[in-house]
Amino acid sequence: MSQAVFERLAIIGLGLIGSSLARRVMADRSPAGPILARELVAFDASAEVRLRARELGLADLVADDLAASVAGAEAVILCTPVGALGAVAGEIMPHLAQGAILSDVGSTKQTVLREVLPILRPDIPLVPGHPLAGTEFSGPDAGFSTLFEGRWCLLTPPEGTDPLAIERIERFWHGCGARTRTMDAAHHDRVLAIVSHLPHLLAFTICGTADDLADETRQEVLEFAASGFRDFTRIAASDPVMWRDIFLSNRDALLEMLARFTEDAQAMARAIRWGDESFIVDRIERGRAIRRSLIELKQS
Amino acid sequence: MSQAVFERLAIIGLGLIGSSLARRVMADRSPAGPILARELVAFDASAEVRLRARELGLADLVADDLAASVAGAEAVILCTPVGALGAVAGEIMPHLAQGAILSDVGSTKQTVLREVLPILRPDIPLVPGHPLAGTEFSGPDAGFSTLFEGRWCLLTPPEGTDPLAIERIERFWHGCGARTRTMDAAHHDRVLAIVSHLPHLLAFTICGTADDLADETRQEVLEFAASGFRDFTRIAASDPVMWRDIFLSNRDALLEMLARFTEDAQAMARAIRWGDESFIVDRIERGRAIRRSLIELKQS
Repeated sequence: MSQAVFERLAIIGLGLIGSSLARRVMADRSPAGPILARELVAFDASAEVRLRARELGLADLVADDLAASVAGAEAVILCTPVGALGAVAGEIMPHLAQGAILSDVGSTKQTVLREVLPILRPDIPLVPGHPLAGTEFSGPDAGFSTLFEGRWCLLTPPEGTDPLAIERIERFWHGCGARTRTMDAAHHDRVLAIVSHLPHLLAFTICGTADDLADETRQEVLEFAASGFRDFTRIAASDPVMWRDIFLSNRDALLEMLARFTEDAQAMARAIRWGDESFIVDRIERGRAIRRSLIELKQS
Repeated sequence: MSQAVFERLAIIGLGLIGSSLARRVMADRSPAGPILARELVAFDASAEVRLRARELGLADLVADDLAASVAGAEAVILCTPVGALGAVAGEIMPHLAQGAILSDVGSTKQTVLREVLPILRPDIPLVPGHPLAGTEFSGPDAGFSTLFEGRWCLLTPPEGTDPLAIERIERFWHGCGARTRTMDAAHHDRVLAIVSHLPHLLAFTICGTADDLADETRQEVLEFAASGFRDFTRIAASDPVMWRDIFLSNRDALLEMLARFTEDAQAMARAIRWGDESFIVDRIERGRAIRRSLIELKQS
């Protein structure tokens, strides 16, 4: 029988990510295969979600009490919205087992450090994580055990974190099918700002701009939505509260990327106004070059 | 035997759209079915493309001379890049048959009127068209006969155009599988600016912004491209010269939509900077509402 990564694991928050992790842990109980956790305890702030989690068999035990759910766990993974992370961490801190690893799955990482480091017990290793995976759906029914297969999970442990704790969290994610990369939290937030947060902001905004057009034009915008606009509305279909939290918690990096983007868009506007053909073609060519690189990296 | 829409049709320019139209006309020769054109003559400025068009059997006759290709045709459809339309129209004008219908497939429509109306012979009805169809590929090999199936073709004839000429062009597009809608050229350009041209401008720009980041970050942008950014690069993979022409020929409407969008993006930036949660959620909700409307319209 292989060694489980964790004897007892607690997952707090059973939305898309939390319930997917829980399903993966529960699906991984073959006597021969690797075992992510010998025992899984789960908790969600919503009584309705806890009830549904029990019906779905998402954990060995779905606790009704947050403090009780983390007692005795070797590791606790917070899967709550980013805006609730600090409060939940504060509440569980006194109840964590000696030396338990604390991790999370939030989309922004500097806020986690900012909110959790000041209240972190000295014996608790903090290994924040961010799986680059998701769908436009949410809630405990939306999760599935293969969500992390072949995806990245970025880890941003603060300096001085016990390397053994980092290594166990990495083993856990590898067992979920993900690849891991460790990086600085500020660097993480800048990369995600351009890769994910700014594209979502632009998609939400163009939908709003279209919605502001006069009634007749708006109807035609819908009727004649060519591929460009349709792709934007797909991105814009995501959960409002989750994205509000992401925008606010990655404010500095996002505003910087938006400022760079706006400068570039204004330069394009100027080139269009004055007919600077070579500038326009150069910018378009760079988009194609990035697309080619992406395809070469087999990300497409 | 059914009546053909045109006895003799000329298609000028055999890229994606022109070669797709040509394929559709040639595929439509069953004795029982409707016949789009009893005879199809095609021309392309490139000798190489003409050679390939003959190999592919894209027309009854691939002419080597532009003037000769339109002689005796009841209708001529210009499928050249928008930037070349005016010059080509000027060159063929003296050679058009008495009363021949002149049409095109360009993505912007005010420029067509601006360039062609001053040189238009009084006996020639002008029925500009714009099929909302395409792929990211180009050239005579990229076309296919079903490209227009179920898509819109927008027509922008100037006031006073012979209704019978408009009706024949509509019958032609219906025979290609498309739906048609007639509208004012300025209105067309505004709708397309928000539905297609601005989304492409934003996609090209964000790829350029990402490309400008420091080397280390750029590599990671490629590695960690989440769904948001990846969708943008797909849009940004289109043909540079075609898009340069579209941006320049729809300059006024595009710059106006970009200005509206930029105001909206700045308002979003301000809300993020000052933590105006309800503003942020409201803008995100509007994107979702538009997405829902699109799905209801079965455009998705």
